[in-house]
Amino acid sequence: MKATIYKGNKTFSVIDKEIAEPKEGEVRIKVAYSGVCGTDVHIYHGMMDKRVDIPETIGHEMSGTIDAIGEGVTGYELGDKIVVRPLDDRAVKPSDKGFNHICEELKFIGIDSPGSMQQFWNVPAFTLHKLKEETDLKLAALIEPLSVAVHDVRLSGLKEGETAVVLGGGPIGLLVAMVVKDTGANVVISEVNPVRIAKAKELGFETVNPAEVDLVAYVRKNTEGRLADVVYEVAGVQPALDVMTEVAGIRARIVMVAIHGEPKPVNLFKFFWKELKLIGARVYEKEDYEKAIQLITVNELPFEELITDVQPLTKIQEVFENIDNNPDGLKVLMDCQQ
Amino acid sequence: MKATIYKGNKTFSVIDKEIAEPKEGEVRIKVAYSGVCGTDVHIYHGMMDKRVDIPETIGHEMSGTIDAIGEGVTGYELGDKIVVRPLDDRAVKPSDKGFNHICEELKFIGIDSPGSMQQFWNVPAFTLHKLKEETDLKLAALIEPLSVAVHDVRLSGLKEGETAVVLGGGPIGLLVAMVVKDTGANVVISEVNPVRIAKAKELGFETVNPAEVDLVAYVRKNTEGRLADVVYEVAGVQPALDVMTEVAGIRARIVMVAIHGEPKPVNLFKFFWKELKLIGARVYEKEDYEKAIQLITVNELPFEELITDVQPLTKIQEVFENIDNNPDGLKVLMDCQQ
Ligand SMILES: NC(=O)c1ccc[n+]([C@@H]2O[C@H](COP(=O)([O-])OP(=O)(O)OC[C@H]3O[C@@H](n4cnc5c(N)ncnc54)[C@H](O)[C@@H]3O)[C@@H](O)[C@H]2O)c1
Ligand SMILES: NC(=O)c1ccc[n+]([C@@H]2O[C@H](COP(=O)([O-])OP(=O)(O)OC[C@H]3O[C@@H](n4cnc5c(N)ncnc54)[C@H](O)[C@@H]3O)[C@@H](O)[C@H]2O)c1
Ligand SMILES: [Zn+2]
Ligand SMILES: [Zn+2]
Repeated sequence: MKATIYKGNKTFSVIDKEIAEPKEGEVRIKVAYSGVCGTDVHIYHGMMDKRVDIPETIGHEMSGTIDAIGEGVTGYELGDKIVVRPLDDRAVKPSDKGFNHICEELKFIGIDSPGSMQQFWNVPAFTLHKLKEETDLKLAALIEPLSVAVHDVRLSGLKEGETAVVLGGGPIGLLVAMVVKDTGANVVISEVNPVRIAKAKELGFETVNPAEVDLVAYVRKNTEGRLADVVYEVAGVQPALDVMTEVAGIRARIVMVAIHGEPKPVNLFKFFWKELKLIGARVYEKEDYEKAIQLITVNELPFEELITDVQPLTKIQEVFENIDNNPDGLKVLMDCQQ
Repeated sequence: MKATIYKGNKTFSVIDKEIAEPKEGEVRIKVAYSGVCGTDVHIYHGMMDKRVDIPETIGHEMSGTIDAIGEGVTGYELGDKIVVRPLDDRAVKPSDKGFNHICEELKFIGIDSPGSMQQFWNVPAFTLHKLKEETDLKLAALIEPLSVAVHDVRLSGLKEGETAVVLGGGPIGLLVAMVVKDTGANVVISEVNPVRIAKAKELGFETVNPAEVDLVAYVRKNTEGRLADVVYEVAGVQPALDVMTEVAGIRARIVMVAIHGEPKPVNLFKFFWKELKLIGARVYEKEDYEKAIQLITVNELPFEELITDVQPLTKIQEVFENIDNNPDGLKVLMDCQQ
């Protein structure tokens, strides 16, 4: 079989490898598609070389079918369509209080252990979620990032009729905006990249460029002074941190989806004054995966439009180089059977 | 009657003044005690001269009895023991979403309009909360700051058996710690001032000096790795902001009680990683006042120990000068009938 391998130093190679048998408690997956995530690009840039056991296959946004079933695994049949929830929480402790998805010793499959950018992939069966017969496997590669969005919206407690502002219209921001809309809430996207602004508008979203329009005044006007009930920080930059506490109305909830590597200035006075809530959100829980699977299966949101490219495994090096040269693309999928 | 007046420039005077009749919808209160709050000290320092209509009587932590009843006011009798919830929310708008206590146009009585550091005080009747016959009027002057603590603990959703860390053992921090204990939760106070550390220990609180002991290691050890379920930031300094995200366990809630005048660095990565929640908390709602009144009336917590001095109105200038020279004292009350 073909497998891709990250070798450090911005380099991937494609190798030929024996197909391994699944161990006890594992299944072997015939991988259909594997999406390229911002984290994978981070790895490619060498930012996570301490965590990734180089040379290593990476990838965690995938879809596939069951190809072989290891000893002790029940409830699956060959050919079942599945996705993997790439969280290995086997080292969970009582001090994690039952929050397995963010347990202190969590291992992320595809970063801390081999990932999905190969033709066949062995994983523990407890990571599997079954898809429906009719679920599209290409769209299903979006279930992992969509689950992030579902988790974010769930933790925000967003209600029908409320107004949400999404700061950042990248893949995660757009998925958050879709889930917000699906909840029956109003959504305004704030984005600075003209190509992404155009894309967001094309998808039917009210989209503002905060470099050109006063976002706070815009939202204030459109909400008769209430401002945002929920803000999703999905941009990861200081201007988003500066505006999040301004565009938030009284008792608004701000969900911190973006990953900020260092401590950054936050207007805590506004937290006090308007009794704002900041809610940290990381990955997803089982129920978020189930909800994402349902959304992808009924396929009533413009998921297809997020997939801006599909390439064979053999093109992995070009794919990562292109992402660096083109910040306009959204989600690139690797077709793992090519 | 005697009234004190803040004249700007760190100066109070005591004047003789006519006792005014209450207007329609108002009552006249014979003020018993009026506590000195950090905000009053801020005003004395000239930090709020733009907001205070100098020359002005300040003060908002008080107890008293009904002395006269204005037209249209029902439900009160002369001699009733009362406290004032000093929030004038008459300019509330639909965009405040029913959160009257923090409405955009809120006026704080005692800052934005005349306060309680005088013998008689006229206020709108809607600000009143009735005390019990047996409520001690001296302790009742603590109801306003105690309501802040009750509000903070309520917004944190603290549950019996959880562990709370209170950063800062000033008057508000100690009241928060008392309410935490009353909830059946464990509490650790972090404080740097040796006199306040001694006081907190005297009141029976586990107290740590973070300049001498590693607070995070201490809490980790005492919670078998869970760390704090709730953190109350009541210190208002950068070291407290630095430690709050460290001492907080998975999905912990951090209540921002302290007022931070400018944006300050916050570790947002930890919010993401541990799915922390930051909850801004400002003043109190009606139910917090009722709960505080009940706590003061049954008097089973060491409230008395917080009152470190009681002085007549005529001594107001010395009182404020002494507070500046002695950061060890906790709550000073003005005896408004002296
Ligand atoms: N919480 C989680 O579990 C989780 C999971 C996945 C991704 N993430 C994080 O979510 C964030 C978004 O992920 P992504 O893949 O969509 O990233 P991305 O970089 O593609 O998207 C960020 C977007 O923000 C836009 N932006 C930049 N400055 C802006 C500004 N001032 N105002 C508005 N928008 C601005 C950029 O143009 C870009 O389109 C990243 O920080 C990522 O690490 C978190
Ligand atoms: N949210 C509200 O509605 C509300 C109401 C009242 C007061 N406040 C605010 O609450 C805060 C506390 O009020 P207070 O009257 O008790 O103030 P205070 O200044 O008396 O108490 C703060 C305490 O923190 C201690 N401290 C300083 N550095 C520390 C550190 N590194 N670690 C631990 N403790 C440290 C100080 O020694 C002091 O005892 C203030 O910021 C005040 O403005 C907010
Ligand atoms: Zn991902
Ligand atoms: Zn006060």
